[in-house]
Amino acid sequence: MSIFQLLLVLKICRKYLHWVQNSVFEGEITVARLEKLKSELRKIINEEEDSIIIYTFRTGWYTRREIMGIEKGGEEVIL
Amino acid sequence: MSIFQLLLVLKICRKYLHWVQNSVFEGEITVARLEKLKSELRKIINEEEDSIIIYTFRTGWYTRREIMGIEKGGEEVIL
Repeated sequence: MSIFQLLLVLKICRKYLHWVQNSVFEGEITVARLEKLKSELRKIINEEEDSIIIYTFRTGWYTRREIMGIEKGGEEVIL
Repeated sequence: MSIFQLLLVLKICRKYLHWVQNSVFEGEITVARLEKLKSELRKIINEEEDSIIIYTFRTGWYTRREIMGIEKGGEEVIL
């Protein structure tokens, strides 16, 4: 992925989620908005070479988030 | 974090988890081994500057993992 594509991917992700660290984003999102995000990303990435992993938690009940070191990202944390 | 520290962190994580992408690792791990991993990492990172985020799911029931593009990592996937 070119740096231009990467910056575009990051810019798109920021519309829906908040940046946490490196190329990691987090946030609460509806199914519809997630589909919209994915369709925008599909226009940018080359699915033969690039890789985006999406982890969705339907509830925060069974999920824990722990930071070692400093909290880099912005806004409030979802978990 | 220096490149040397980063390589050391990646090497340590590989002992416990499998590499998925960039600086992301996944895997099933006991509480005891997770504590061991964290104590090894604490000896390497500078907690005033560096940031490691650990997401733990007590069950895979409410969690979904989806790939856009290629699967980069190795071994079988936990979700």
